Order: sequence, then structure tokens, then C-alpha cells
Amino acid sequence: MIERKMQMGDLYAFYGQLLTEKQQEIVELYMMEDLSLGEISEQLGITRQAVHDMVRRSEKTLMRYEEKLGLFERFERHREELKKINAVLHGLRDSLASERQTLEEVIESVNRLID
Amino acid sequence: MIERKMQMGDLYAFYGQLLTEKQQEIVELYMMEDLSLGEISEQLGITRQAVHDMVRRSEKTLMRYEEKLGLFERFERHREELKKINAVLHGLRDSLASERQTLEEVIESVNRLID
Repeated sequence: MIERKMQMGDLYAFYGQLLTEKQQEIVELYMMEDLSLGEISEQLGITRQAVHDMVRRSEKTLMRYEEKLGLFERFERHREELKKINAVLHGLRDSLASERQTLEEVIESVNRLID
Repeated sequence: MIERKMQMGDLYAFYGQLLTEKQQEIVELYMMEDLSLGEISEQLGITRQAVHDMVRRSEKTLMRYEEKLGLFERFERHREELKKINAVLHGLRDSLASERQTLEEVIESVNRLID
């Protein structure tokens, strides 16, 4: 359930503007504010069933846009790739730091020979 | 005109799947295959004016999606940032290559003192 809400939140961040204002309102209460269907129903003065239907319909709409456009998946692939690159860069930083340390030691040895 | 076609091509790559099949067909002939309105009109057996209207309407639709979602702009900002990062990495590579060269020279000097 939490995972489903998260996925819906991701898709909403991408395609939320394509929902109607009412749908946006409900999805935001449901996901961002984490209200229950019952709480939303009370707050907006509509039936719990109506809230449920609106959430379901919004979810389907968001998923349909992603099926057509795949932009969320594209961004995600991008992010995954960047995480790998970041890990390589961290490794490079560490190895440069270690080379620098070795260099300091060699300089120290040479200094001892000079003095 | 070329620039306008390019921008439309970019937006089409993002949101083209939200156009009708007919609109997609025409936009592809117009942009990808670079046919003129007259040539498309002839090929599809519809008036030049109808082709013109379809292109205009498709263009407006694509722009409206971008206005709402801004995903193309987001990708572009991403790309620009990555280009800057790439330039920094190239600089780093060059400077590491130059350090390596310096290191080779120092090794050579030490070797001369040993031999």
C-alpha cells in the first residue's frame, strides 16, 4: 500500500498537472497529507466511495500517461546511471587522496636525504 | 522556421504519443521527413490548408503539454548541467595526464641518480 502510494506520488510529480483540479486536490490530500479516504470524505463533504473512485481514476490516468510517454522511467534510468557515476567518482576521489598521501611520504623521504 | 521545426521536434519526442494517430502521421512527415505542406497534402490526399491546420494544432497541443508539465525544460536543464560536469571532467583528465607526465620525468631523474 505504501509502495503503491509512493509510485503514485512519483507519477503525480510528473503528470499531476494533467489531472483535473478536483482530482489534484484529492490526490494531494491522499498522498501528500496522507489522509485516509474517510478523512478526505469528511473534509470535502463527499462520500467515501466517491473519494475512492476519484483516487482510482486519478491513479489510472497517471499510469496511462506514463505508459504512453515513459518519461518517469526515463528520468529514473538517468538517476540510476548518475548514481553509478557518482560511486565511480567517489572511488576516484579516494584513490587520488591515497596517491596524495603516498606522494607526501615520498617527499618526506627525499627531504630526509637532503637534510 | 528551421528553429521552430526543431523545437517542435523536441517537444514531439517528449509528448508526441499524446497526439492523435493522424496528427502523429502528419507531424512526422512534416518534421522527420521534412516534406512541405504541399507534398504532404498530395501524399495524403487532403487539402494543403487541412495539413496546415493539423500541423498548427499539433504544435499548440505539444506546447500546451510542455507548459503544464515542463518535462522537456527539466531534461534540458539536466543536459546543460551534465555538459558543464563533462567539461570539468575533461579538465581533470588533462590535468591528471599532465601530472602523470611530470611524474614520469621525476622517475627519470631519480633513475639517472641511481644508475
